[in-house]
Amino acid sequence: MTNTKRYVVGADLGGTNVRAALIEEETGTIVARSENVSSKALLGPDLTAAQIAYAVDKAISEAGVDRSVVRGVGLAVPGHIRPSAGMVLWAPNFYEQWRGVPLARLVSDQVKLPVYLGNDANLAALGESTYGIGRGTRHLVLLTLGTGVGGGVIIDGRMLLGHDGGAAELGHMLIAAGENARGGNAAYGSLEGLVQRDAIIERASRKLSLGRDSLLAQGPTFVRADLTPKAIADAALAGDAVAIETLDEVGHYVGLGVASCINIFNPEIVVIGGGIAQAGDLLMAPIIRSAKVNAVVTLFATCRIVLGGLGDNAGIMGAAALIEHEMSLKTWQPQQP
Amino acid sequence: MTNTKRYVVGADLGGTNVRAALIEEETGTIVARSENVSSKALLGPDLTAAQIAYAVDKAISEAGVDRSVVRGVGLAVPGHIRPSAGMVLWAPNFYEQWRGVPLARLVSDQVKLPVYLGNDANLAALGESTYGIGRGTRHLVLLTLGTGVGGGVIIDGRMLLGHDGGAAELGHMLIAAGENARGGNAAYGSLEGLVQRDAIIERASRKLSLGRDSLLAQGPTFVRADLTPKAIADAALAGDAVAIETLDEVGHYVGLGVASCINIFNPEIVVIGGGIAQAGDLLMAPIIRSAKVNAVVTLFATCRIVLGGLGDNAGIMGAAALIEHEMSLKTWQPQQP
Repeated sequence: MTNTKRYVVGADLGGTNVRAALIEEETGTIVARSENVSSKALLGPDLTAAQIAYAVDKAISEAGVDRSVVRGVGLAVPGHIRPSAGMVLWAPNFYEQWRGVPLARLVSDQVKLPVYLGNDANLAALGESTYGIGRGTRHLVLLTLGTGVGGGVIIDGRMLLGHDGGAAELGHMLIAAGENARGGNAAYGSLEGLVQRDAIIERASRKLSLGRDSLLAQGPTFVRADLTPKAIADAALAGDAVAIETLDEVGHYVGLGVASCINIFNPEIVVIGGGIAQAGDLLMAPIIRSAKVNAVVTLFATCRIVLGGLGDNAGIMGAAALIEHEMSLKTWQPQQP
Repeated sequence: MTNTKRYVVGADLGGTNVRAALIEEETGTIVARSENVSSKALLGPDLTAAQIAYAVDKAISEAGVDRSVVRGVGLAVPGHIRPSAGMVLWAPNFYEQWRGVPLARLVSDQVKLPVYLGNDANLAALGESTYGIGRGTRHLVLLTLGTGVGGGVIIDGRMLLGHDGGAAELGHMLIAAGENARGGNAAYGSLEGLVQRDAIIERASRKLSLGRDSLLAQGPTFVRADLTPKAIADAALAGDAVAIETLDEVGHYVGLGVASCINIFNPEIVVIGGGIAQAGDLLMAPIIRSAKVNAVVTLFATCRIVLGGLGDNAGIMGAAALIEHEMSLKTWQPQQP
């Protein structure tokens, strides 16, 4: 049997799990997936590399394709990556031992395929640009609203990496210096400080603590213990005023960030991803309103602002797209087995 | 006589004058200059194209080199350029008739050389990166503080242009949304709104109107009629407290913009240019302090923040560097004579 299709593996490393999928490269079709495999990231890089290799092998064997038609493995990592060395410079969500880890080589030694690394949000942008809502565009900006705020930028089809792989930290843009912010490692007035998960919850909580009636309240002055961005999105979709106002606030600030990105990158498309994006138009409308007010007119006019199309798969799909991205670049040698 | 040196012409179009220089391409040495030639930009593109051609011819004949060793002409224009078409899409400092002007062709028809266009601030970045303080770097961000605030970004040696040439409007980054701003076409809380020429003067004026004693005051409560950023820089260098505090404020906001740029681009170098940069350390110290507080530590640590090295020549030198930049790209055809 001849098979002229080319396959790649996309893998997404999280603090808890690693997920891998075998993907038909041309179309982006997911042929097979590994089960969720524990990433054991807190137990150190060697064990994690073994877990990644296990997930990769699982996805390949699940699909029943020969390893010889698999071009390589892309791996999305939440941290600062030095792509040219296949190295994790820093992964703050893991432990201190995740500094200067040659993860591409560790995995490549086991899977016997070329392995490429990328930052997870950068790769989500590459995924949306290659296989998702941005397919066909060459200039894309992505913002993911999650525990923090991640970013990725595609310029003329290439990922923005900076001189040492640390670029596109769009959550760390200062957009409202001097404004209240909270939590984590975000600077006051940074986009992340203003709209990260905990900041969104706090925005709703403050309204509830004024005694507002809401689906999010437990009794007149109590905040639901399980208040999450998803619960806020759900309540907003059910028409809850407090939830809708919270999304208005969040959208206002995200829109400032989007405006800055439009003014900085002159992109064809800005993609909004992450859990709270489930609120759909209730979030997108204030984002677009705020972006329109603050972006240069001619640059705004030629840019679409849309929800991500790949959802949870953005990282995996971007990791899959990374193989062609890097092989076509050829300015550096990938980690070979 | 044989001459193996290659020459290019860099020209800088302003609202009042056009300046051109013949430059030895390898070293960036200015061999000859035209006098300042009136740009006649308010009289329309055709006349301006003739004036540009006159300045270009002047610089070449002044140098006494043969036109056959001149590779081409780069032209810096204050506006939104579509480089692939050699077209000025919009030049807000000129008149309404400066929309969709095929300026590269208009000039090329007269000078009988290939002509390339770029936005002036983008080209200042290319100039500093090729011939100035950033020589040897491949990832550079430039901010120019003048009447407005311009920006240029070099990524892996290439200018950031966006999908239609409008990128790198760094003055239009939102950095302190909600904060007071003034003047021009800048949004509230944008970097330009906070530190453009008029905003700097107003910052000093407010302090003076409180009755502060200062070199900038004319009597106890009067603002000097000739108050300019340069006068403020001079007074600061002479130890004037009001002027120094004004630069502290300006530096604080510029530093926020620099921090955002570091977080976004992971550059090797950020270059500060424009008239007020003459204040030197009195401006750079607060910029660096503010950038350090707000940038990601690892990205700040590998980035220098410095004054521009080319001064008024940044546009001309960047325009000269544009010829190699575009000829080596070869993804589009320049306007040939």
